[in-house]
Amino acid sequence: MQFTLIHQDTSTKARWGKISTSHNVFQTPVFIPVGTQGSVKAVSSEELEEIGIKIILSNAYHLYLRPGYRTIQKLGGLHKFINWKGSILTDSGGYQIFSISPLQKVSAEGVKFKSHIDGSEHFLTPEEVLEVQLVLGSDIIMVLDECSPYPVDYHQAKASLERTLKWAKRTKSVWSEKEKGLFGIVQGSTFKDLRKRGAEQLVEMGFDGYALGGLSVGEPLSLRGEIIEWTNAYLPSSQPRYLMGVGTPMELLENISLGIDIFDCALPTHIARNGTVFTWEGKINLRNAGYKEDSSPLDSKCECYTCKNYSRAYIRHLLRAGEILGMRLATYHNLYFLNQLMEKARGAIKENKFEDFKREFIKKYERR
Amino acid sequence: MQFTLIHQDTSTKARWGKISTSHNVFQTPVFIPVGTQGSVKAVSSEELEEIGIKIILSNAYHLYLRPGYRTIQKLGGLHKFINWKGSILTDSGGYQIFSISPLQKVSAEGVKFKSHIDGSEHFLTPEEVLEVQLVLGSDIIMVLDECSPYPVDYHQAKASLERTLKWAKRTKSVWSEKEKGLFGIVQGSTFKDLRKRGAEQLVEMGFDGYALGGLSVGEPLSLRGEIIEWTNAYLPSSQPRYLMGVGTPMELLENISLGIDIFDCALPTHIARNGTVFTWEGKINLRNAGYKEDSSPLDSKCECYTCKNYSRAYIRHLLRAGEILGMRLATYHNLYFLNQLMEKARGAIKENKFEDFKREFIKKYERR
Repeated sequence: MQFTLIHQDTSTKARWGKISTSHNVFQTPVFIPVGTQGSVKAVSSEELEEIGIKIILSNAYHLYLRPGYRTIQKLGGLHKFINWKGSILTDSGGYQIFSISPLQKVSAEGVKFKSHIDGSEHFLTPEEVLEVQLVLGSDIIMVLDECSPYPVDYHQAKASLERTLKWAKRTKSVWSEKEKGLFGIVQGSTFKDLRKRGAEQLVEMGFDGYALGGLSVGEPLSLRGEIIEWTNAYLPSSQPRYLMGVGTPMELLENISLGIDIFDCALPTHIARNGTVFTWEGKINLRNAGYKEDSSPLDSKCECYTCKNYSRAYIRHLLRAGEILGMRLATYHNLYFLNQLMEKARGAIKENKFEDFKREFIKKYERR
Repeated sequence: MQFTLIHQDTSTKARWGKISTSHNVFQTPVFIPVGTQGSVKAVSSEELEEIGIKIILSNAYHLYLRPGYRTIQKLGGLHKFINWKGSILTDSGGYQIFSISPLQKVSAEGVKFKSHIDGSEHFLTPEEVLEVQLVLGSDIIMVLDECSPYPVDYHQAKASLERTLKWAKRTKSVWSEKEKGLFGIVQGSTFKDLRKRGAEQLVEMGFDGYALGGLSVGEPLSLRGEIIEWTNAYLPSSQPRYLMGVGTPMELLENISLGIDIFDCALPTHIARNGTVFTWEGKINLRNAGYKEDSSPLDSKCECYTCKNYSRAYIRHLLRAGEILGMRLATYHNLYFLNQLMEKARGAIKENKFEDFKREFIKKYERR
């Protein structure tokens, strides 16, 4: 994996870059759709390609439990299994183990947890978590981390950070891949000295990219921004920065302006299935009665498949009637919208106008 | 609507024909996928087209209740609302009123029923049921009928038949469309004299096609075949015959050999969503553990989008994980399979070899 910083915006800290993997090349800032179980919910690989998506995320935790990573290996790896020709980033499963698993016990050695599916017990070391992701054939691999909840006391946050750093070191020491990328994850909750230490230590170990973990877990938005800006200052500009679990159109632009390159979030596809779709004039909820006889597309400026072929009234009807097609069409649109937003953001960075672009977008988006 | 009988098989009573509507021309025997609420569950209009489907069925009962036929009218009619360029056949709603509605009261004038969605009370005359379908813009319209359950006593079956005939007469008397088709529905349960009377009376009124209703409601298969063969003898060969609510690949071939031209059934798409898919060597259930590491397509001879791109193991994983894409891929395949089956059936009729074709198909299909 290779990151190239193409241009640094002069109006903000926003960056335009590109990442090459053995599967393709894509530009940053990039929003990565979430395909937790090997499928971005409701859409197909071909549709993702059609939208212009170059990289998706899958969760090692979920695929490890079902169908099993050895099963996927036998079937030719994750790319072949899910018929996806683009890049894949896999989450280490740390976040899932600490949020979905009904039981977890952390030791220096690794983490013991129970499957949320059948209650079976599992134990994974950071080295094994790496192995799982290598076997899956992921292009960008995340180290196992211990994600602090919010709020958390200093002592606990420090302990999680130290464990995460030790696990990162062990993972790095067995890493020998040339074509894939390994990302370290900075923890430290909202404590600046911990974030500094986390970033500095990981940079010293030398990863292909750095993720900001333990954010978007309930902390106030302003504090989040402060921590991100603070942490970014300790990360090298030559490597990509990945903010995990973000977000909405507004959050994406806000964090691009702080120098983040990579995002992932399940929210845009999740809310689509419930009838909330993005438009250039703010988000709308199709379940509102006002759309009952609305023959216009989701967004009149959008050129996606959904907007070229279907009306708000029809998609509203489908969602109310519990029809799968409604979820498909709304998901397709939201992913297309975010992909367009990222493209426009990169264009603005190129022209050193990201601050203006962000302001203009927010002005229209918040009007509704 | 215009039906042309192209060829009569010499080995069975199977017929090859074509139907022209103002939207397109399609050949018979034809299987019509069910899009109850204005969407063939899990697939899009474009996918239906890609599969080669020329006509879909929608339920007047469902669309009348939600989103409302006047709403669809304001939005430009059903074709525009659902973005479907092919033909549409609408069910009268009779079957739904008698099977889904929590309350129904039949009188000579019409039928009172309650919405299964919100419990609201409605009253529809046969003339209004026609009006609903005309407003929707349906190409093939069904008269309101009273469907007998099975078993039913002779007296009751006769009363339902007589009411159905009166409603048919009233509907016919206000019918003045040139481009659309109006189909009468033969009731009479499993009583031969009632079926004979039903067919003869409807033929005397003169419809564009004749449906066999009140079958596939629990009667023994052999009795069903007997009644169909018996009834068909009283229907003109110059008009299409439509067996409502059938069926499986085996039932389709069996009834084609008895002279049926049109079929509809929700089962092929329903079972697909639960993991049962058709293959030329019998149906398989993907939930069986044996498919866990099966890298082959659903059917090795199938050339559909699903079979060209995805494995049994992946679709099995998706279905087990509750992923929408699994339901999409399985549905696509089952519809493609039935469309291919109908095409092959027509080819066999053309060559007067339908009996052989049916026997060969069943031999392979039942082996599993």
